[in-house]
Amino acid sequence: MIERVHVIGSGRVGSAATARLRERGVAVGDDDPDVVLLCVPDTAISDVSRCLAPGHGWIGHVSGATPLAALDPHERRFSLHPLQTFDRSGDPAQFDGAWAAISGDTEEALAVARELAELLGLHPFELADTGRTLYHAGAVFASNYLVTLQRAAVRLGVPAEGLVPLMTRTIENGFQLTGPIARGDWAVVEAHKQAIREAEPELEHLYETLAGATVMLA
Amino acid sequence: MIERVHVIGSGRVGSAATARLRERGVAVGDDDPDVVLLCVPDTAISDVSRCLAPGHGWIGHVSGATPLAALDPHERRFSLHPLQTFDRSGDPAQFDGAWAAISGDTEEALAVARELAELLGLHPFELADTGRTLYHAGAVFASNYLVTLQRAAVRLGVPAEGLVPLMTRTIENGFQLTGPIARGDWAVVEAHKQAIREAEPELEHLYETLAGATVMLA
Repeated sequence: MIERVHVIGSGRVGSAATARLRERGVAVGDDDPDVVLLCVPDTAISDVSRCLAPGHGWIGHVSGATPLAALDPHERRFSLHPLQTFDRSGDPAQFDGAWAAISGDTEEALAVARELAELLGLHPFELADTGRTLYHAGAVFASNYLVTLQRAAVRLGVPAEGLVPLMTRTIENGFQLTGPIARGDWAVVEAHKQAIREAEPELEHLYETLAGATVMLA
Repeated sequence: MIERVHVIGSGRVGSAATARLRERGVAVGDDDPDVVLLCVPDTAISDVSRCLAPGHGWIGHVSGATPLAALDPHERRFSLHPLQTFDRSGDPAQFDGAWAAISGDTEEALAVARELAELLGLHPFELADTGRTLYHAGAVFASNYLVTLQRAAVRLGVPAEGLVPLMTRTIENGFQLTGPIARGDWAVVEAHKQAIREAEPELEHLYETLAGATVMLA
C-alpha cells in the first residue's frame, strides 16, 4: 500500500500530483518513500534517476514518450502517463476523469502503478513499454494538434467563441464525420482549397493533407 | 416579424429547424410564408431556388460555403449557416449555444437572418458573402478534421474512451498548447515520427505537416 510518495518536480503535473496525494491523506516527502515519482522534463528523467540511490521503494516517471529504461539502474520501476493536458494551477481536479497509461516490467510494478493512478484519480490502462512512443504521438494528435486546428479555423475567419460549441459537440456526438468530405462533395473541398490558396496560402497544404487523411481514416 | 416559415428539406438541419420553429410557435408550411428556408444539399440550392416563384417573402439557405448568388433570381435573400455539427435525430436542442454565420445584401436581409437565427436558438454573427468559403473551410478544420485527429490517435494506440476527457479539457483550457512542441522538445517529435514511420507510415506526413503548422500558428 502506498503511504508516502516523494514527488520530484513542481511543474504542471507535479504540483497537481502533490496536491491530490495530500488531499487523499498520502504523506508527501523524501523520508523513505514507497514511491519516488519523477515529474521532471523528459530529458531530465535519466539524470535524476541515476542520482537517486535505490531504496526499498519504487520509482516512476510520468512521461508519455519515455521508456522504462530511462529509470536505470533502478529495477523496481514503472511509468504512469496521465492522458490529459494540465494548466499551471496545480489543481488536483485536473486528474478527475482522465485516463493514465501505465507500464511496468512485472505484475508487481503494474500493481504499484495502478494503485498510484487510482490514488491520483486517474483511470489506468496498461500500455506495453515498446508502444509508448507511438501512443504518445497519438496523444499529440488528439490534444496539441486540436489546438492547431482551432488556430487554423480562427485564421480563416471563424469566431473563436463560436468554435467552442462546435468542437465540443463534435466530441459529444461520438466523432461522427459530417461536412463536405462525408458527403463526398468534392466541389466544396476544391472551393475551400482555392479560397485558402488566395487568402492564407500557408494553410493550403495542411487542409489538403488533412482531407486526404480524413478519407483514409474514414 | 417571422410568423410562418417554409422549411424545404428534412435532413439533419432541416428536421431540427422544423422542430425548433414549431416549439417556438412559428407556423411551418408553404402557405404564403414570410421565409422559405432551403435546407437542401449545396448542389441543389440553385435548382430549387429557380423553381420557386418569388413571393412577398424572403428566401434563405443554410449552407456554409454557398454564396447568396445561388439564390438567384430572388433578391430578398439571405444565408444562415449554423456553426454546428448535427446528427440525424432532428433534436432542436442541437441549436442551443451554437453560433450562426449570417450574410445578406442589405440591412433588411441581415435583420431577417438575425431574427430567424435567434428564433432557432442560434447566436448570429455577420459574415461577408465573399468570406463564406474561407470561413467554411475553417469550420471543416475545427469539426471534420477534429474527427480525423481522433481517428489517428486511436490508430496509434490511444484508447478511444480516454480521448474524450483529453480533447474536452484541451477545449476547456482555452486551447493552451502543451506537449513536446510547446516545450521545444524536438527529440520527442523526432521519436514520434520514427515510431509512426515504422508502425503506421501513412500517418507520418500528417504528423509532420501538423507539427509544422503548429509551429507556424503558435
